[in-house]
Amino acid sequence: MASSTKILGISGSMRKRSFNTALLRAAQELLPPEATLEIFDISKFPLFNQDMEATPPAGVVEFKLKIRGSDAILFAAPEYNFSVSALLKNAIEWANRPSKDNAWDGKPALITSASTGARGGARAQLHLRQILSDVNMFPLNKPQLLVGNAREAFDSDLRLIDETHRQTLKQLLAALVAWSAKVRS
Amino acid sequence: MASSTKILGISGSMRKRSFNTALLRAAQELLPPEATLEIFDISKFPLFNQDMEATPPAGVVEFKLKIRGSDAILFAAPEYNFSVSALLKNAIEWANRPSKDNAWDGKPALITSASTGARGGARAQLHLRQILSDVNMFPLNKPQLLVGNAREAFDSDLRLIDETHRQTLKQLLAALVAWSAKVRS
Amino acid sequence: MASSTKILGISGSMRKRSFNTALLRAAQELLPPEATLEIFDISKFPLFNQDMEATPPAGVVEFKLKIRGSDAILFAAPEYNFSVSALLKNAIEWANRPSKDNAWDGKPALITSASTGARGGARAQLHLRQILSDVNMFPLNKPQLLVGNAREAFDSDLRLIDETHRQTLKQLLAALVAWSAKVRS
Amino acid sequence: MASSTKILGISGSMRKRSFNTALLRAAQELLPPEATLEIFDISKFPLFNQDMEATPPAGVVEFKLKIRGSDAILFAAPEYNFSVSALLKNAIEWANRPSKDNAWDGKPALITSASTGARGGARAQLHLRQILSDVNMFPLNKPQLLVGNAREAFDSDLRLIDETHRQTLKQLLAALVAWSAKVRS
Repeated sequence: MASSTKILGISGSMRKRSFNTALLRAAQELLPPEATLEIFDISKFPLFNQDMEATPPAGVVEFKLKIRGSDAILFAAPEYNFSVSALLKNAIEWANRPSKDNAWDGKPALITSASTGARGGARAQLHLRQILSDVNMFPLNKPQLLVGNAREAFDSDLRLIDETHRQTLKQLLAALVAWSAKVRS
Repeated sequence: MASSTKILGISGSMRKRSFNTALLRAAQELLPPEATLEIFDISKFPLFNQDMEATPPAGVVEFKLKIRGSDAILFAAPEYNFSVSALLKNAIEWANRPSKDNAWDGKPALITSASTGARGGARAQLHLRQILSDVNMFPLNKPQLLVGNAREAFDSDLRLIDETHRQTLKQLLAALVAWSAKVRS
Repeated sequence: MASSTKILGISGSMRKRSFNTALLRAAQELLPPEATLEIFDISKFPLFNQDMEATPPAGVVEFKLKIRGSDAILFAAPEYNFSVSALLKNAIEWANRPSKDNAWDGKPALITSASTGARGGARAQLHLRQILSDVNMFPLNKPQLLVGNAREAFDSDLRLIDETHRQTLKQLLAALVAWSAKVRS
Repeated sequence: MASSTKILGISGSMRKRSFNTALLRAAQELLPPEATLEIFDISKFPLFNQDMEATPPAGVVEFKLKIRGSDAILFAAPEYNFSVSALLKNAIEWANRPSKDNAWDGKPALITSASTGARGGARAQLHLRQILSDVNMFPLNKPQLLVGNAREAFDSDLRLIDETHRQTLKQLLAALVAWSAKVRS
C-alpha cells in the first residue's frame, strides 16, 4: 500500500448536469493521499454487438487498457427503470468481451449512486451488484452511498455539499484503497 | 377478440445470427390466426441521453408510435452478464421518456429468451421483469420460455426445430392474445 | 363488479408493533365500498419442509382455503436484508405446494411495504415481485406504496396518519378491485 | 494459511434426502488438506421475530458462535419460487440481529446449489448474493456451482457422482481457502 492506488471512475449518465458524474468529481476531492482517480467517459461507444467483439472500436480498446491499469473501479450508477442505465451496461459488456479477454476480471470496486428521488438508486445498485458478479468483480458492501434528493445534496455548481454524504464517501474511498490491497494480495 | 391482436416483437440482440431474433421469427410462424407480429429493429438508436429526451431521434419517435399502435409486446431477451442486454435496455429507456410520455404504459407482454448455455436466460428474464414493472407493463408469468442449448434447438438456418419449445411458444402466443384482451378490457 | 371483492391481507412481520401489519389495518379503513379485507396471521406455521408438503399443518390448509376464496391478495412486506422476510417467504412456500396444488395460481395482488428507513422496502418489493411471478400471481405495478420513515407516518397507536400515503393506499385499493375484475374476467 | 481454515456449511433444505445437504457432504470429501467443514443444522429455529431478537433461542446463540468461530461460510441454497428458501433466509435473519451484533459481518463465502431442474438454482444464487451484501459477506464469484438435473448428478445414496461437478467443487473449496485468507488479512 506504500505505492499509489489507481482508481478508475465511471459514470452511468451522460447528462451534462449529471449528479452521478458530479459524485465522481466529489470523490476526486475526497481521496486518501495515496490514491488517484481518473474519470473515463463511456458515452462515445456504439451499442455493443457481439459480431464486432473481436474488432472493438478504438475507444473500447483504450477503455480496457485503462481498466487493466487500474487497481479499483468506482461506479456512479444512476437508476433508470429499477436497473442500471443502458449506458453503463453497454460499457460493462464491451469490456467483458471476448470471453477470454474480460478486462474487469478480479477488480475490486465501489458502487455509488445519486438520484433526485428519495431512494437514491438502491435498485440500480442491486442489479449492478449481480452484473458485477458475472464479470468477477469484488464490490465493497457497506456503508451504501445512496445520495437521494440530489437537488439538495448538490449545489447549483454540482458540488456535493451534503456533509454526511461527503464523510461517507471519504470513508468509502479509504475503505476501497484498503480493500483493493487485500483483493490484489 | 374478434378483431386482430397486433403484437410488436423486439429482439435484444443485433447479432446477424442471433438466436433471439430467430425466436421472434419462429413466433411469426406459430401465431394464432387472429394475431399479427411485426418485428422492430432497435439497433440503430443512439445511447439514451436524458438531455435529448425532449427531442428524440426519428427512429425513436417511430418506435414509440409502433408500441402505442400495438396490443402486446413480445420480447426476446438474451442474457448478458446476468442481466438484459444494453441494446434492449436502451430501447426501453427511450420509449419510457419523457416521464409523461411513456409508450409502454399498461401494455401486456410476453418475455422469451434463447441462449447457447443451459440456463436459457433465466436471470435476464428476472431483471427484465423488474424493469417492466417500472414502465407499467404486464408480462405473462408461465410457462417460461427459456430456450437453452440454442445450437441444438435451432437448425443452421436459425429455424426453431425443437418441437417442445415450438409447442410452448405456440401456447404462449395464444395465451398472450387472451391476456392482452383481458388487460385492455 | 357488482358483487363484493374479497381481499386477503398478509403481513410479513409478526412484531407486535409492526408497521406493516398496521398498513393492513389502514387499508381496512380505506377500502372502496364494494370490497372487504380480511387479515390472515401467517406467524404460526412451522418452517416449510418439502417432506411434509403432502400433509401440511391444519393452519396451512385453512390458509390455502382462504387464498382460494379471495379475489385478490394484499401484501405488506417488510424488508429484511434487501429481501422479503423469512416469515412471508415461508407462507408463500406452503401455499404453493405441492406443485399441482398452488393456491396462489392466477391471483391478482397488490404489494405494499413500510419501513423505518428512507427506502421504504423498495428492494423487498422487487424480490417479492420475482417470487410472485413463479407462483403465477399478477401484482399491480403503480404507484408503488413505499412508506419510509414509518415512525413519522404512523402515530403512537400505529394509525397511518401521513395523508399522502393514505390517499395513495386508497387509490391503490380501488385500482386493485378493478384489476382483480379484469384478471378474473 | 499455515493453520487450518474452518468452514461452516449451511443447507437451505431440511428434506431428509436433500440434494443441497448432500452437496455439503460431498464438499467434506473434497476439502483441501488445510481445511475443515462442519455442517450446522438450521431447521430447528423458530421463525424470526424482531420482538425476540434481544433474547434469541439457545440454538441461535450457538449458531452465531459457530459462525464467529469460522473462517468462511459454505451455502448450499435450493431455489424455491425463484428465491432462497424461507429456511435459509430465516437463519440469515437470526444471525444478523440485533443490528449491532451481526455474526456474518465480513465473512468470506461460497454459494452452491443443486436442483432437479435444468437451471440448478441460478435465481436463488442471485437473491442470496444480494442478501449477503446487506449482511456484509464476501462471496466468491466464479465458477458458479449449479448442479442441475440432480437426480443424475447424485446416486441413490445421495453421493455426488458427476465428475465435472466434483472437480468444480474441489477447485472452489481450494479457492475459498485462499479467498478467506485474503479477506481476513
